Amino acid sequence: MKVFVFDVFGTVVDWRGGVAREAATFLQTHGASGVQPEAFADAWRSRYVPAMRKVISGERPFVRLDVLHRENLVDVLPEFGIDPNAVAPEALDELNLAWHRLDPWPDSISGLQRLKARHIIAPLSNGNIRLMVDMAKRAGLPWDAILGAEVAQIYKPAPQAYLRTAEVLMVEPGEVCLVAAHNDDLAAARKCGLKTAFIARPYERGPNQTVDLKAESDWDVVVNDMNELADAVGA
Amino acid sequence: MKVFVFDVFGTVVDWRGGVAREAATFLQTHGASGVQPEAFADAWRSRYVPAMRKVISGERPFVRLDVLHRENLVDVLPEFGIDPNAVAPEALDELNLAWHRLDPWPDSISGLQRLKARHIIAPLSNGNIRLMVDMAKRAGLPWDAILGAEVAQIYKPAPQAYLRTAEVLMVEPGEVCLVAAHNDDLAAARKCGLKTAFIARPYERGPNQTVDLKAESDWDVVVNDMNELADAVGA
Repeated sequence: MKVFVFDVFGTVVDWRGGVAREAATFLQTHGASGVQPEAFADAWRSRYVPAMRKVISGERPFVRLDVLHRENLVDVLPEFGIDPNAVAPEALDELNLAWHRLDPWPDSISGLQRLKARHIIAPLSNGNIRLMVDMAKRAGLPWDAILGAEVAQIYKPAPQAYLRTAEVLMVEPGEVCLVAAHNDDLAAARKCGLKTAFIARPYERGPNQTVDLKAESDWDVVVNDMNELADAVGA
Repeated sequence: MKVFVFDVFGTVVDWRGGVAREAATFLQTHGASGVQPEAFADAWRSRYVPAMRKVISGERPFVRLDVLHRENLVDVLPEFGIDPNAVAPEALDELNLAWHRLDPWPDSISGLQRLKARHIIAPLSNGNIRLMVDMAKRAGLPWDAILGAEVAQIYKPAPQAYLRTAEVLMVEPGEVCLVAAHNDDLAAARKCGLKTAFIARPYERGPNQTVDLKAESDWDVVVNDMNELADAVGA
């Protein structure tokens, strides 16, 4: 394994906690202080897969994830009693940047630093380049490059997202290991010939998470955090 | 200025010295020990612009710089009395990687580290992603992202190379400053609306350099090394 690429939302960073933190202030300001910020984060996130699928299917051309997040934000606000037309566009833009300011899980930085010493590490995220850059600079994620959907111009789990990433790194798919907390992402990567590492993130979706609690296939590596991954691969 | 993007070959790293260092061994091994390695580096490099222009003109589809370097290597060897068909392809591949192993100028790392603290920094090079990653890991170049021709899918000085880089960074062209030791690169960037910083590298082409010895236009910043650039922009 020469190259490790990473799912980011949920695998490297805590999207639910980070979005809820910034949404809490927004909800209070806009008369929805009774709303649980975590419920708002879940509802916003739940619109991500359907929006992305329209791009993968070719129903609409590729747009970066920030665009999908912004559209989904406008769509989700009425569910929580907020009229998006009554909110200044700048306030929506600002809340949309919550995805750029997510915190890493406590083990992410130390594990990535160890892996980086002997391997190439890069995000293979559906997040756009600027989102990944802002997140990395704020959190100190030591990526060697910013790869993923915007470089490949296609979203995971489309095969080209994985294959194009291997191609720009000039390695065979089997020389790349995808690290992810999501069994479906790993399954799509394995179909393309990539190696797979499952990292359990049982609180990604909060205390009542029911999916992705454990590896559902014989992934090449199965670990509980990023330092265990570094241990497992001798980094 | 929120974002600094950098020409790399000649501006951040010493391509001539690095290629000559690796060519010296190759030339000796292949019966051309009388050849000046620097002359060989110059001849190899001189084929870069014509090869790249065929891509910019649309005469051939985009291929990464490693491909152009490899073709140019085969083309240039006979000039120095070496039959490329008599050399193992692996030896040519290995010499081609000399471009991945170039050393930074002495001021590059410290200047980039200072700039990185308050700005986004990324290569805007014609070098491909893997080349830039290998170079950065070996030399310790602290890029926030690897951008440039392969991400834009077009070579400088085509306008889209500059404009697409600003676009993926989600900034207006005028919020990006190109740093380069080459007046023509800066002129092309300025036409696209980018800010411009000239950094003098009077030995890039050896002791008898005649071009790009000084700024030939009123670039926004004109400095003698990367730390002067950090000083000039208050980084």
